[in-house]
Amino acid sequence: MRISTSYGRRTYALKCWRCGLELDTLSTNHTCSRCGEPLFAEVNLGEISRRGIESLVLRELKKVTLGEGRTPLIDHGRFLLKLEFLNPTGSFKDRGAALTISRALAASWRTVIEDSSGNAGIATAAYSARAGIKARIYAPADAPAGKLRLIKAFGAELRTVKTRDEAHKAALEDRSGVYVGHVVEPFFIEGIKDVALELVKSGSEFEVVVVPVASGTLFLGLYKGFKELVELGHIDEVPTLIPVEACGYSKLSRYLKSVSLACAEGERSVLADALRLTIVPRLQQIARAAGEVSPYVVTVGDEAIGESMRELYSMGLPVEPSCAAVYAAAKYVARDFSGRVVVPLTGSGLKYVPVPNELIDKYLF
Amino acid sequence: MRISTSYGRRTYALKCWRCGLELDTLSTNHTCSRCGEPLFAEVNLGEISRRGIESLVLRELKKVTLGEGRTPLIDHGRFLLKLEFLNPTGSFKDRGAALTISRALAASWRTVIEDSSGNAGIATAAYSARAGIKARIYAPADAPAGKLRLIKAFGAELRTVKTRDEAHKAALEDRSGVYVGHVVEPFFIEGIKDVALELVKSGSEFEVVVVPVASGTLFLGLYKGFKELVELGHIDEVPTLIPVEACGYSKLSRYLKSVSLACAEGERSVLADALRLTIVPRLQQIARAAGEVSPYVVTVGDEAIGESMRELYSMGLPVEPSCAAVYAAAKYVARDFSGRVVVPLTGSGLKYVPVPNELIDKYLF
Repeated sequence: MRISTSYGRRTYALKCWRCGLELDTLSTNHTCSRCGEPLFAEVNLGEISRRGIESLVLRELKKVTLGEGRTPLIDHGRFLLKLEFLNPTGSFKDRGAALTISRALAASWRTVIEDSSGNAGIATAAYSARAGIKARIYAPADAPAGKLRLIKAFGAELRTVKTRDEAHKAALEDRSGVYVGHVVEPFFIEGIKDVALELVKSGSEFEVVVVPVASGTLFLGLYKGFKELVELGHIDEVPTLIPVEACGYSKLSRYLKSVSLACAEGERSVLADALRLTIVPRLQQIARAAGEVSPYVVTVGDEAIGESMRELYSMGLPVEPSCAAVYAAAKYVARDFSGRVVVPLTGSGLKYVPVPNELIDKYLF
Repeated sequence: MRISTSYGRRTYALKCWRCGLELDTLSTNHTCSRCGEPLFAEVNLGEISRRGIESLVLRELKKVTLGEGRTPLIDHGRFLLKLEFLNPTGSFKDRGAALTISRALAASWRTVIEDSSGNAGIATAAYSARAGIKARIYAPADAPAGKLRLIKAFGAELRTVKTRDEAHKAALEDRSGVYVGHVVEPFFIEGIKDVALELVKSGSEFEVVVVPVASGTLFLGLYKGFKELVELGHIDEVPTLIPVEACGYSKLSRYLKSVSLACAEGERSVLADALRLTIVPRLQQIARAAGEVSPYVVTVGDEAIGESMRELYSMGLPVEPSCAAVYAAAKYVARDFSGRVVVPLTGSGLKYVPVPNELIDKYLF
């Protein structure tokens, strides 16, 4: 996919990658009014370069912060573990929420609406609280109870519906605020790009990044970040990105060679609650990017997730089950590459372990 | 108090601040064999200086890491909030545990023993897991259930007794491993010094730091760190440090002018579970340092802690109750100073909020 840098004196715009339509960044549109494609925010890379590439996001865009980003990267043999669960509310979603809510503040939106399996709802609730904006979060009733409690603790209005997909539909139908759902919000992805920059700037050599995919914000954020770093002459090429999905929730196996790890016949993952999404508005974009940089997708079942989670705790890392799926995939992927494998550990286990849970406790205790 | 830098070619040693006795750093002693004073680790500041003061700890001391430190510092009006709850296991104790367990690894200790109200036990369990060392943690049975579950999730052996003080006594009596309790361990304090360095290096001006005090590791770590930065010529003087204690658990009010915030008659705080310690081996050292840099101590009651916790969540910050006590104190302290006030937010609320709790829920929901 081509990304354009020709904004002249303008520093950023909303843009359709398919038809090239440009919209003002304060537009409430998240999809192209001409062709329906979810939009991207695009920054003037010349301006980024002029400032010494401290960030792939212009500082003036970030009006709301809780100190997200610059997470630790630690060595573990063949793996480089990027501890994204140490963002302020315990997941990488904080990076996206910071920019999303910054835009909401700049545009004087008074109520924002989000749908989430948990982490993005928590992030949106916390950053909205920080900005003094009202947040309404739609979530599935079977999301981890601890996550739902955290959404409410930040003062957001929580509306639970039956499934993750119903949450998405209900949020889209709610007209009493501005929909900023991370599954389509352009600035959410924009906020995530700096994961790519931080990996490159760390100076650690790596060949491949394994990436959990539900709505694809991390995958597209990394892809866009690495693409921009290529355009800026910082790296030669986008590294290999291997998408990871949960058994029973694979959308990419239609488009890519698929490797299944411990998926039982007909299994639908329960442990990987953050990956249980079937409506993916950016699916075509993810598939197109994956077509360029991904040799295959890995789907992981609960037995492998549980074992991998146990291993991560035995390494001192309090992660959530969904990102244990990514570590399980990484161990498979490492056999196919000679270079080091980056493993983003995306969500905190502190939202889970304090609450007794038969399925999780089976592996941890 | 005088701190010495005269180690010649030696880079560090264990030292008694009272009588000057020096011991090898791999000694299992934590108190002076001559006068009973808890020891400090002392580093060769000339060597620190020669390396450009990247850290107040020599890199080669840190053999075990989970990416602790370099936590965000965010602006909030008169306050600078240091987000120590974003350390790997959710508290500032990770900084101390990293160095403590590094020493255990260097000394080939196979089992370490710790006593804790929760966070230090979690940190010791996680870093021991990372190092492949067996950990046994003594904790009070009424510690937050989520914290006790986390200690076990990292594979440590948890032994619960009736009170925090009994946990300390039982740990000291356990001879089947090396006692590394943070309440006396010299390297634990050594690991915390970099909070002072990070504050100074941030470039943000501040006049005073409010500091929660239970066993005093953060207070003494900051004091020692700032002292060393003065010796290194990085700052002119140690900033004012205001200790904060919980109602019913004040040890410093015997030594300092005391300000009480919402302490009911005879109140013993329940919310500030991390501050409920009465046996404080380093109390004389804390009192002496406070005599130099603290005009008064603030004690905070549960009503003020609860209200302050509610306020922090409404700012998007998921903290634990004990560090809400510090923010409550900071709001009082700000009236006495014209400069900015640093507020270390020391523990994560993600260990609490997922679990229903009548006392906490009253303030958050």
